[in-house]
Amino acid sequence: MSSITLLGAGNLATHLAISLHQAGHTITQVFSKTKKSAQLLSNRLNCPYTTDLKSILPSDIAIIAVNDDAIKEVEKHIFFPKIHTSGSTSIDCLNGKNTGVLYPIQSFSKNKTVDLSETPICIEANNDMFLQQIETLARSLSTYVLPLESQQRGHLHLSAVMACNFSTLMYVLAEEICSKHAIPFDLLHPLIEETAKKVVDMNPSTALTGPAKRGDDSVMKQHAHLLESDQEKKQIYQLLSRSIAKRNL
Amino acid sequence: MSSITLLGAGNLATHLAISLHQAGHTITQVFSKTKKSAQLLSNRLNCPYTTDLKSILPSDIAIIAVNDDAIKEVEKHIFFPKIHTSGSTSIDCLNGKNTGVLYPIQSFSKNKTVDLSETPICIEANNDMFLQQIETLARSLSTYVLPLESQQRGHLHLSAVMACNFSTLMYVLAEEICSKHAIPFDLLHPLIEETAKKVVDMNPSTALTGPAKRGDDSVMKQHAHLLESDQEKKQIYQLLSRSIAKRNL
Repeated sequence: MSSITLLGAGNLATHLAISLHQAGHTITQVFSKTKKSAQLLSNRLNCPYTTDLKSILPSDIAIIAVNDDAIKEVEKHIFFPKIHTSGSTSIDCLNGKNTGVLYPIQSFSKNKTVDLSETPICIEANNDMFLQQIETLARSLSTYVLPLESQQRGHLHLSAVMACNFSTLMYVLAEEICSKHAIPFDLLHPLIEETAKKVVDMNPSTALTGPAKRGDDSVMKQHAHLLESDQEKKQIYQLLSRSIAKRNL
Repeated sequence: MSSITLLGAGNLATHLAISLHQAGHTITQVFSKTKKSAQLLSNRLNCPYTTDLKSILPSDIAIIAVNDDAIKEVEKHIFFPKIHTSGSTSIDCLNGKNTGVLYPIQSFSKNKTVDLSETPICIEANNDMFLQQIETLARSLSTYVLPLESQQRGHLHLSAVMACNFSTLMYVLAEEICSKHAIPFDLLHPLIEETAKKVVDMNPSTALTGPAKRGDDSVMKQHAHLLESDQEKKQIYQLLSRSIAKRNL
């Protein structure tokens, strides 16, 4: 079991800290520049907190789970082994003898608990010994741990943005249309759940269905007509339909 | 229980027929212009089939579950109560004393069974008596049945295309990126499942996360750079990121 200094108190930091705590690790201290967040999380973990980077307590490992653009500023103050948790930030962003990355591939929200044991975690380190240490830590949280270099992790993070944020935008657009026409959005809930299941059970391109896939021009024209008063949605509809049709050749 | 003539033998027709059969209705006959499909489905239902529209056997109700553009051609040959199952086709497409619609909001694939009992079904009819009859039929299949007029159904179908087909395209794009960079796509499976769960548990706009939502320009620039050699994905990335950012104002 390790002693861990946690930097950050946002969604990812909170989920990670609680899972680490439950796995038997000791959180030595929580840092957040926002006092309220630091207090809240340290209360849950029964450990001290600080809002001052100059008062960071040393431990076996520091986990830097702050916003990407704050990593450099934070890491400068840490003089013991440290890892960050960012999908899109290179390991080179960290300086020191033992540096690494632990990137859980999941979307974390404030009021929704996520089971980290089923969350894949990508790891990286600047030396083999430290990679082993990070792997042990990651395996105490999840059954699916994979070493991945920074460059590949960047592409994985981009894929995750498409698979998660952009698909959520599609649901937002659908919800806006339903709401405008007084249609209960929950009519789409089983379709949304089934779509995700299908993509996981089959592969995504096999799961593609619908007018663009079938080349059904009359339905696509009808949809474009329905979107006449919403040029943004129309543009998205047409670009994505062309993209589906292209993959059908 | 009703006797039903089924027109069509595709994915939707097959799922519907089997659920109707299991619910205790009698499938009088299956029609498909493709002999193989007609034979296959009629074997599963233990009922006769035809490929000839002039040999349609009458029953309590005809369910027209053919491609949208074939509905008009098929319905001309039916001289008893009839309904179609299309999301994007008006009820006016059908002629006769008793006409209606039964639209299950789900995506059906060949080799994947879907539980219709949890699938919302929208219904419509050209008269109240027939609406009641369709409602009884729909309620024998699903617990969630909602009367919806053709115009609203058109908007619902458009929403379903966005929520299902377009989100699947996002998974396809993610899979293409992973595949190109030798990253196992199953790393994204838990994220995909969690995203769908979040949209259903919260509402979609609350579930939005990621660089465009946070206004993280440096990550978005980095992603655009990674997509430099794939102009189509770059265009989609930028259009959808702008759309997310717009909703964040």
